[in-house]
Amino acid sequence: MADVLRLDANHLKRFCREVYVHMGLTQEDADLSTDVLIEADIRGIPTHGVRLLPRHVEYIQKGIIIPTAKVETLRETPTTLTVDAHHAMGPAVSSKIMSALIRKAETMGTAFASVRNSTHFGIAGYYSTMALEKNMIGIAMTNANPVGLPTFGSKGMYGTNPLAVAAPAGQEVDFALDMATTVITNGKIETYEIQNKPLPPGWAVDKNFQPATDAREIERGLVSGNHFILPLGGQNEDFSGHKGYNLAVLVDILSAALSGGALGPETRYHPWNAYPGALLSHFFGAINIAAFRDPADFRSDMDRMLGRLRECPPAPGQKRVYYAGLKEYEHAKECKQQGIPLTTTTYESLCALGKEMSIQPPKTL
Amino acid sequence: MADVLRLDANHLKRFCREVYVHMGLTQEDADLSTDVLIEADIRGIPTHGVRLLPRHVEYIQKGIIIPTAKVETLRETPTTLTVDAHHAMGPAVSSKIMSALIRKAETMGTAFASVRNSTHFGIAGYYSTMALEKNMIGIAMTNANPVGLPTFGSKGMYGTNPLAVAAPAGQEVDFALDMATTVITNGKIETYEIQNKPLPPGWAVDKNFQPATDAREIERGLVSGNHFILPLGGQNEDFSGHKGYNLAVLVDILSAALSGGALGPETRYHPWNAYPGALLSHFFGAINIAAFRDPADFRSDMDRMLGRLRECPPAPGQKRVYYAGLKEYEHAKECKQQGIPLTTTTYESLCALGKEMSIQPPKTL
Repeated sequence: MADVLRLDANHLKRFCREVYVHMGLTQEDADLSTDVLIEADIRGIPTHGVRLLPRHVEYIQKGIIIPTAKVETLRETPTTLTVDAHHAMGPAVSSKIMSALIRKAETMGTAFASVRNSTHFGIAGYYSTMALEKNMIGIAMTNANPVGLPTFGSKGMYGTNPLAVAAPAGQEVDFALDMATTVITNGKIETYEIQNKPLPPGWAVDKNFQPATDAREIERGLVSGNHFILPLGGQNEDFSGHKGYNLAVLVDILSAALSGGALGPETRYHPWNAYPGALLSHFFGAINIAAFRDPADFRSDMDRMLGRLRECPPAPGQKRVYYAGLKEYEHAKECKQQGIPLTTTTYESLCALGKEMSIQPPKTL
Repeated sequence: MADVLRLDANHLKRFCREVYVHMGLTQEDADLSTDVLIEADIRGIPTHGVRLLPRHVEYIQKGIIIPTAKVETLRETPTTLTVDAHHAMGPAVSSKIMSALIRKAETMGTAFASVRNSTHFGIAGYYSTMALEKNMIGIAMTNANPVGLPTFGSKGMYGTNPLAVAAPAGQEVDFALDMATTVITNGKIETYEIQNKPLPPGWAVDKNFQPATDAREIERGLVSGNHFILPLGGQNEDFSGHKGYNLAVLVDILSAALSGGALGPETRYHPWNAYPGALLSHFFGAINIAAFRDPADFRSDMDRMLGRLRECPPAPGQKRVYYAGLKEYEHAKECKQQGIPLTTTTYESLCALGKEMSIQPPKTL
């Protein structure tokens, strides 16, 4: 297991911002992108955290991410936005679009955006939770590289296609679902690789559609098309794998078919084949609760439901019942007290970046 | 196995309409409710088909469904609707609300409704597919009686909470997802009961949280709280059962928290405890594709994606790859040629109703 260091959030932010500005991002875009990355670490999703900073640098150097791209509004109505991101920085574009939707929903009740030609936007849950403080339900989705097997099929046709929805509570922790529509994420496989553990059967299969368990082999196979991740619900229809599969297709429809972006396997078309997350489409939404009912009443009903779930007696042998958002909230609380955890590998990669760019590396606690 | 009879769709419609009118529904509500029921049989979902007609009659007689209820608009904006159905007929209310949303979305781009104090609305997919001919994406969800176990929990906290989204294609069959967020539906258990087959482990558990396989016992247990259905993804977190669980909670939020309706276990509060589907909340949406891009371009992109899925080479031992909506379309095509299939049990229950009400029963083919 890799050692874990703790860092002060502000030091880490300062560092990321300087790197992004060094790479040609505006200060605003650097700030927004930094927030998205660090929030992933804070919520306990380090695969989407500052670990991605070196990749962003590489993508910008190779012209896969274009920080100066002119983001184009293809169509706009009072309630909708269609955007061509022209390969701009995914997290910065996405933050700005979500903010625009929240402004629209303030007067229009609801607002939605479909975005094409963007790049990996980090955690979907960052954008959905932006809506919470405005008494709104937030929605964010993205398609991803085709590692998922359709039910009964033999080729990767869709990605882990995450789907995030957040809704505010009152006293309880806000509901914040952020889930891949596949049974697991790429990140989970990576975690098993780092821990040198075999994957349980039922998560991924090899090219003979037999259970695959070697994390390193699977990671390579997902890129070469020799391994596949199974949909939520698993292989075939026995446990309703067709539901996970079609939820992933739905994410593709709202993100890419509605914006005219790359659909499913097209996200890997030349010249982006070797670069995960180089050509993605997203979908965002904001639903203003006040358009439906008094937000205070909504929050109070949310408390009643979420409190009931949190207090649900656990089954024998289990410790407690969670609902979506609770674990992430508790992880964030721990980070506030103890600093942000980074593996030494990630920390060292940041220090190396800093050295190259003559930017002072973030201090550890 | 029960024998299957075939009926002419128009004869069957005429019969259902007359029964509904006999029970006090307006002609319009009778027509709408009939369409929802028969469309379920046509799509191959007989558990939600005309089989429910005797239950509707019983519920109306007992005052659980109130056909003359004055449906109340609690809040309305150009893009949203909040409705108290006051125990009106679920399918009729739902059809009318979905039509209202489609009209709103024609000018406003998108429109959404949250509905409380309604009754079982039949198949969610009926309402989502209403949007297709208007070049819209349709959305429908409903909460349901609490038969689902939260991850690590010991009590039924949410229902099968279906989620339906439909999006139009061009030459290909339209995409039409209509899925329970639990691993299986009540209807699936019933099918196993009729066929006298044991359920595979992994669908339901008994009060000791062990796999349950006896369909009849499970059906009784779901009502008494001694059996539970597992979420999509299964028990515990091993195969991401927490995703299915929280998708079900999401449906509850949009349907019931947004409208002020009965949440989760509250759908079974006195005096409705013994009556499944007596106190439900729904959520509907319409997204006008033209607000985002040219609908013809959208349909053509859908064709490219759906055609690629349909033509995906099957894995060894599998016949073909489907996407959501394809099986239902093919079943509907068969019904058009051969008539609507009903079990003799269902047919006889309709004949008995007809006799009571002096309404001519539908003829078999």
